[in-house]
Amino acid sequence: MGKTRIGILGYGNLGRGVELAIEKNEDLELVGVFTRRDPSSVKPLLPGTAVRPAAELDDGKADDVDVLVICGGSATDLPEQTPRYATWYNVVDSFDTHARIPEHFANVDESSRENGTTALISCGWDPGLFSLNRLFGNAFLPDGADYTFWGRGISQGHSDALRRIEGVADAKQYTIPVEEALEAARSGSNPELTTREKHTRECWVVLEDGADPERVFEEIVNMPNYFDEYDVTVNFIDQEELDRDHAAMPHGGFVLRSGTTSEGTSHVIEYSLKLDSNPEFTGSVLTAYARAVARLAAEGKHGAYTVFDIAPRYLMPCDAAELRAHML
Amino acid sequence: MGKTRIGILGYGNLGRGVELAIEKNEDLELVGVFTRRDPSSVKPLLPGTAVRPAAELDDGKADDVDVLVICGGSATDLPEQTPRYATWYNVVDSFDTHARIPEHFANVDESSRENGTTALISCGWDPGLFSLNRLFGNAFLPDGADYTFWGRGISQGHSDALRRIEGVADAKQYTIPVEEALEAARSGSNPELTTREKHTRECWVVLEDGADPERVFEEIVNMPNYFDEYDVTVNFIDQEELDRDHAAMPHGGFVLRSGTTSEGTSHVIEYSLKLDSNPEFTGSVLTAYARAVARLAAEGKHGAYTVFDIAPRYLMPCDAAELRAHML
Repeated sequence: MGKTRIGILGYGNLGRGVELAIEKNEDLELVGVFTRRDPSSVKPLLPGTAVRPAAELDDGKADDVDVLVICGGSATDLPEQTPRYATWYNVVDSFDTHARIPEHFANVDESSRENGTTALISCGWDPGLFSLNRLFGNAFLPDGADYTFWGRGISQGHSDALRRIEGVADAKQYTIPVEEALEAARSGSNPELTTREKHTRECWVVLEDGADPERVFEEIVNMPNYFDEYDVTVNFIDQEELDRDHAAMPHGGFVLRSGTTSEGTSHVIEYSLKLDSNPEFTGSVLTAYARAVARLAAEGKHGAYTVFDIAPRYLMPCDAAELRAHML
Repeated sequence: MGKTRIGILGYGNLGRGVELAIEKNEDLELVGVFTRRDPSSVKPLLPGTAVRPAAELDDGKADDVDVLVICGGSATDLPEQTPRYATWYNVVDSFDTHARIPEHFANVDESSRENGTTALISCGWDPGLFSLNRLFGNAFLPDGADYTFWGRGISQGHSDALRRIEGVADAKQYTIPVEEALEAARSGSNPELTTREKHTRECWVVLEDGADPERVFEEIVNMPNYFDEYDVTVNFIDQEELDRDHAAMPHGGFVLRSGTTSEGTSHVIEYSLKLDSNPEFTGSVLTAYARAVARLAAEGKHGAYTVFDIAPRYLMPCDAAELRAHML
């Protein structure tokens, strides 16, 4: 069997993560990064990567693409792109606006069913692997409690919120799980934990010349939804320090389920990720699921899927007998 | 839709675990514990549980059973029972002799395909949930290393080995992961760990009257395969203390995968279980997969399966739209 041929649409941090991940999988081949920019202006990470105009994808013209991994943003790109490209290609996206998942799923499902393609939405680690572990935890311990902790890692949404404040030139925000809350969840006592008890927020802020740190501080800690319900620390630094010490994109987190199977008999399931690079790991997850999508498509299984619908064996390059012999 | 009706064959610790688990799932109903003993001699844990003779299962006579959970031992019961009962029923077993899984799978697959039933073998937490996490780890971090640690928990096989030594009246053996080895695996440095470095073995031994503790100790620590490659501690105690302090069946363990996605960028995935009762948790896992088997059977999907082949959504009682809305 030939290699599964992957295309990447959109070449930000996540697209680069997918590019690197394909290199690690011998059964997969990158046929190109598709960009809406001038291809000659895009320098790929790896020397062998072809950069092609996104217009080549229109009307299904890029017939060397088995699966297209769409690496756009959830706010405006993916709601438009995924249903559109699902008319011509098998697709994978990382749509992560939880509240809009049912609507996005319906749109993509309609497009892919009508056109006989296979689509996976909302893939990555949350939504994605953390969702899987929430499902497994609820299935195996139906009488119990769920806990999800994120971090330590940079929250893009909260960093953007800081940068929108007047007088802020640049900023990064780390979400940090509170160790005592993690330990309480691990204890199996099913504690009730408030928002403030679970996470703290750490801000690294570069001020514009003449901005008043006092006012910026007050605006941050009182910002509704983003910061007002949390214990927040704010550190003012210069741009050089921000670029030097806060350019990496580590992330991770914990999904716990604790529950009882009979009076006084409790169990704790814990899943955790410790990631040096959020986009590289997310890209690697999308890449394994792109393999699964190619296989589902080859079996004639069309329409939209989530990670909940995909049997684990589709993620691995070897066949089921080999998996049973060596991994079960 | 009516409840899914479960039968239990074999009523040891695991069968009792399944009985308790069914109580926690409103969409499932226990139609009976089937036993080869005199049913009137078997006292169920829960007052509502019917105890029925195993002979009622012969020739598919027990037509109120949607899925039969077979709770026998892997050494002699399951290799005979699972293919046999798969001729009449959808079945789930916890066959855990890793080396013989391909052979057992083939036998069960033949029986269930020929007779249009659905069978899941080797379910539980290892094989089972730990296997799933080994697969996920390899799929998402193909360039990496695997680590499985068991414990702290009682190993039945090692406890049996102790009891076979001349002069030993009774014994329990705990397998204990070495904290330093766990930390090394968590560091992301992909260390190579020897058998001795990963686990220690702790023995609690009751001697027969007049037995020589020195000789028993030497026999234990030099026993090939079981103890000679490990650091072992041996504690001689009396039966009363063994019964009082070592009757519980806690267990658990850790599956780690660490790997890199590019030069110098590494990630660690960790999955862990901390179980007050190994048979109750295993019973709960078998019960969730019994639900999945009933659904696969209703979809006309026959033959043998493992946890690798089952899409996660089949494990939950609610439908896929609800899962997407609330758990993704």
